[in-house]
Amino acid sequence: MSKNITGIAASSGIAIAKAYRLETPNFTVEKYDITDPQAEIERFEAAIVKAKGELEQIQAHALRELGEDKAAIFSAHLLVLSDPELLNPVKDKIKAEKVNAEYAWNETTSMFVAMFESMNNEYMKERAADIRDVAKRVLAHLLGIAISNPSLISEEVIIIAEDLTPSDTAQLNRQYVKGFATDIGGRTSHSAIMARSLEIPAVVGTKCATAEIQNGDVVIIDGLDGQVVVNPSSDVLAHYEEKRERFEKQKAEWAKLVHESTVTSDGHHVELAANIGTPEDVKGVLANGAEGIGLYRTEFLYMGRSELPTEEEQFEAYKVVLEQMQGKPVVVRTLDIGGDKELPYLDLPKEMNPFLGFRAIRLCLEMQDMFRTQLRALLRASVYGNLKIMFPMIATLEEFRQAKAILLEEKEKLQHEGIPVAEEIEIGMMVEIPAAAVLADQFAKEVDFFSIGTNDLIQYTMAADRMNERVSYLYQPYNPAILRLVHHVIEAAHKEGKWAGMCGEMAGDELAIPILLGLGLDEFSMSATSVLRARSQMKKLSKTEAASFKEAILSMSTAEEVVAFVKQTFHIE
Amino acid sequence: MSKNITGIAASSGIAIAKAYRLETPNFTVEKYDITDPQAEIERFEAAIVKAKGELEQIQAHALRELGEDKAAIFSAHLLVLSDPELLNPVKDKIKAEKVNAEYAWNETTSMFVAMFESMNNEYMKERAADIRDVAKRVLAHLLGIAISNPSLISEEVIIIAEDLTPSDTAQLNRQYVKGFATDIGGRTSHSAIMARSLEIPAVVGTKCATAEIQNGDVVIIDGLDGQVVVNPSSDVLAHYEEKRERFEKQKAEWAKLVHESTVTSDGHHVELAANIGTPEDVKGVLANGAEGIGLYRTEFLYMGRSELPTEEEQFEAYKVVLEQMQGKPVVVRTLDIGGDKELPYLDLPKEMNPFLGFRAIRLCLEMQDMFRTQLRALLRASVYGNLKIMFPMIATLEEFRQAKAILLEEKEKLQHEGIPVAEEIEIGMMVEIPAAAVLADQFAKEVDFFSIGTNDLIQYTMAADRMNERVSYLYQPYNPAILRLVHHVIEAAHKEGKWAGMCGEMAGDELAIPILLGLGLDEFSMSATSVLRARSQMKKLSKTEAASFKEAILSMSTAEEVVAFVKQTFHIE
Repeated sequence: MSKNITGIAASSGIAIAKAYRLETPNFTVEKYDITDPQAEIERFEAAIVKAKGELEQIQAHALRELGEDKAAIFSAHLLVLSDPELLNPVKDKIKAEKVNAEYAWNETTSMFVAMFESMNNEYMKERAADIRDVAKRVLAHLLGIAISNPSLISEEVIIIAEDLTPSDTAQLNRQYVKGFATDIGGRTSHSAIMARSLEIPAVVGTKCATAEIQNGDVVIIDGLDGQVVVNPSSDVLAHYEEKRERFEKQKAEWAKLVHESTVTSDGHHVELAANIGTPEDVKGVLANGAEGIGLYRTEFLYMGRSELPTEEEQFEAYKVVLEQMQGKPVVVRTLDIGGDKELPYLDLPKEMNPFLGFRAIRLCLEMQDMFRTQLRALLRASVYGNLKIMFPMIATLEEFRQAKAILLEEKEKLQHEGIPVAEEIEIGMMVEIPAAAVLADQFAKEVDFFSIGTNDLIQYTMAADRMNERVSYLYQPYNPAILRLVHHVIEAAHKEGKWAGMCGEMAGDELAIPILLGLGLDEFSMSATSVLRARSQMKKLSKTEAASFKEAILSMSTAEEVVAFVKQTFHIE
Repeated sequence: MSKNITGIAASSGIAIAKAYRLETPNFTVEKYDITDPQAEIERFEAAIVKAKGELEQIQAHALRELGEDKAAIFSAHLLVLSDPELLNPVKDKIKAEKVNAEYAWNETTSMFVAMFESMNNEYMKERAADIRDVAKRVLAHLLGIAISNPSLISEEVIIIAEDLTPSDTAQLNRQYVKGFATDIGGRTSHSAIMARSLEIPAVVGTKCATAEIQNGDVVIIDGLDGQVVVNPSSDVLAHYEEKRERFEKQKAEWAKLVHESTVTSDGHHVELAANIGTPEDVKGVLANGAEGIGLYRTEFLYMGRSELPTEEEQFEAYKVVLEQMQGKPVVVRTLDIGGDKELPYLDLPKEMNPFLGFRAIRLCLEMQDMFRTQLRALLRASVYGNLKIMFPMIATLEEFRQAKAILLEEKEKLQHEGIPVAEEIEIGMMVEIPAAAVLADQFAKEVDFFSIGTNDLIQYTMAADRMNERVSYLYQPYNPAILRLVHHVIEAAHKEGKWAGMCGEMAGDELAIPILLGLGLDEFSMSATSVLRARSQMKKLSKTEAASFKEAILSMSTAEEVVAFVKQTFHIE
């Protein structure tokens, strides 16, 4: 009997395969007396060795498939399994109390987890999560129970899970995992972003996928329309096979555009760029024919480690990206940490409203050593390609001026030291704070370019945390207030002969593209996998026609009106 | 030797008196064996009775001086002292372990405090704070140590404290407490707001007042310039006595304006209104000659209690305010709960960014029973005066339309039931979300009025939590981006023949007043104690002249520029 489950379309495409439920079994740990503590300790040590071997395998897999930053999770797990402060108390307990290893391990790890969790500190809470993960793995070996290791999947499946953790997604093998459906999450949740970057069709937020789907059920994931079909009838199956084929054909069409430049039907060129997080992402940028990198998020260099990256480490990363891009523009955003992205080793105080807190440029202007190190690394790398630097979360002109002055100071210092630095480096800013958008005409006199960060701009302009499901209805990219601000920023840039780009989710959105083209946006930066679709769409659009609707759209009063108008005008379903 | 300490001017005026350090002594609780448990239990019970008596005294004082909402804190404290779940374990411990009452009490309360604090829930954390307060009070009686009871102060003093808690300020006696200085806090901290509402000169955020000032030192509090002078020389004392006199004279001058209307030097009338939180505040509104109430915050009706207020309770409160205001406009804001204002009994989920969360109208549109009860109470009260209703945190037109539709539905229902409702009630909205300000021209077609809430508007527009000291430099009322939004809102209102007011801190600010007058603001709503000063200032200003600087100010690029310009142009120090 065929069942239809509706969720949120998180990553496009159609996948059909058997269901594979990803679950962590519940372990019951019993306590019993043992007679030979030495033998029990050896049994414990053997389990540790097995768990370590498994983790190393998973880590290597993650490194290969997903890059360094994702693999770092498993370094942390391996560290836990080598920590004598955790292992010795377990052995002592086995010896002193003559109890079984499972019990001693469970008691000890539970205590550490409780202790770390009770501390009001994100870093310690992450340690608690690491220990909990690792504790289960070792326990599974002690008890002889298998736990799901998605990396060991060796046939084509659709993964069904409540949610996918970073550690789950780090293990996914694109060859076998054809798609996934989760109970929770939204379009911008971790699992959704991972799905898009792995190009696996996915539907998230179904609420009931794990309740409704059994191992071995045939499952269709329709990542285009957010549908999950369970045990489809042959008619339904045929329908989706046809839909998949159409989509694959379309993708093939798009693929032909990989070496073309992006020109509208009336001959205007716009730049389609991609967003990246690590040097490994450049492959995807090139494979998808992006004309540049519109946003290189440098946070990942700072994350998943225990201290700040050195100037040298950063220099290497920036250099690799610039070289691989062979003269195409690379817009690097300086460190945007704080908010939802923490760096445990900086030990920043907990904030009541982190999204409105001490983050990004605010933090960099205060922690200038850290900031200057990054700027030096960037300046040194600048000779290897076409580097543009932008500052995140600029709210006032004073902040921009101060950040720019620091950059120029470091540049001068390097030149004094005889270290080569590119002559012309464009210096721009993110426009993601309403104040900066409103005052864009003043900023435009001093910046070389703007990049509109819609994710934050929308959440501040609507005063709605985009991670908070209760107010997610207010995350409205098409709200005329947002479009007016975007328009004002673009006009302000053009008036001063500068360019304006966009690097939020919105830039790659099918509905937003005709609006933004009409507003005159110069550069659209999106996930690499969206570039070809966007190029195909752009080639069919006339910029002049799109611009003719500008006034009408900007004088609408609700997002709903805008959406209805754009769908009808540009024939988008 | 005279010492000068600089802090933040929190409440204007000059006070001179001896220092009174408000501190909680540190108790050392020793454990010892007792022989007569019954006698020890009686000693314990006697201490409880004494503590209760003291609390009742403080509560009565708070009720008299500060109103119901402030007194509610002490009801909570009294409840704790009557809770058998707390008291019985102490008695059991005394009996079973034959230990002294101090020890048993301390152990038991510490355990409860730790337990409540470990729960990740604001309500429980407040309970922990209550128990901690009460525990000290009982301990003081058991140990025969005096703790500071500010309500028992009976000579003129300047209070010196690290900070003042709500429970401290609730006990302050205006007759004796002439001023205060604290180590921590800012202009919008609880203690600063209380000082202004009590009209006590205060300097907060001195960092070192408690370190530098001893009991009995002669202290000058200069709440005009944020100075604290300790043990002044006779010259310095004379200087400040003169300054105090000048200030008192000025206040006397202002007092003459109490029955005048507010007319600028070139004959334009503007409305000066006051903000209130409870019906008790109306006294101050009338005493200070405000022309209306520009913001009645209804949250206090919902706070400090264990369940929602009934329609009847609300009706009574609204009616009292409307009657006392005798036909002068009363703008009531519907419930703005959430964010930093929690209602424990609603048991809302903890949010990562409460300021960007599920609050105010967002919550009311979902919890419609609660909302409709408030609206019915307001509608029923409307016949007793000049009621205007406004909705807080409106981000989209759909929200305003929905809220208004619900209001009209309730109005119709009441009319059907034959209950009288005023014919004409203006329905407006707060403009405190950037999206609403940007789209004000669309909103203006559907609202009767706007009231600009600058506290929130600034924090969202600048993306900076105004409670977070690390980003408080971004709380910039004079940032041209803010002024442009304010201007746009006023223009939009006027174009549709509607009026625009402002009810944030900014409306009463000496520097902001000439700017806002020039931008055409119709109504200024501020703390009652600022009304006469503002009226005096307004009478000296020419609206035409102020308006002539509008374009210049709106095309400035930083807050600093604006401030310098306004100071110079309007001769404000």
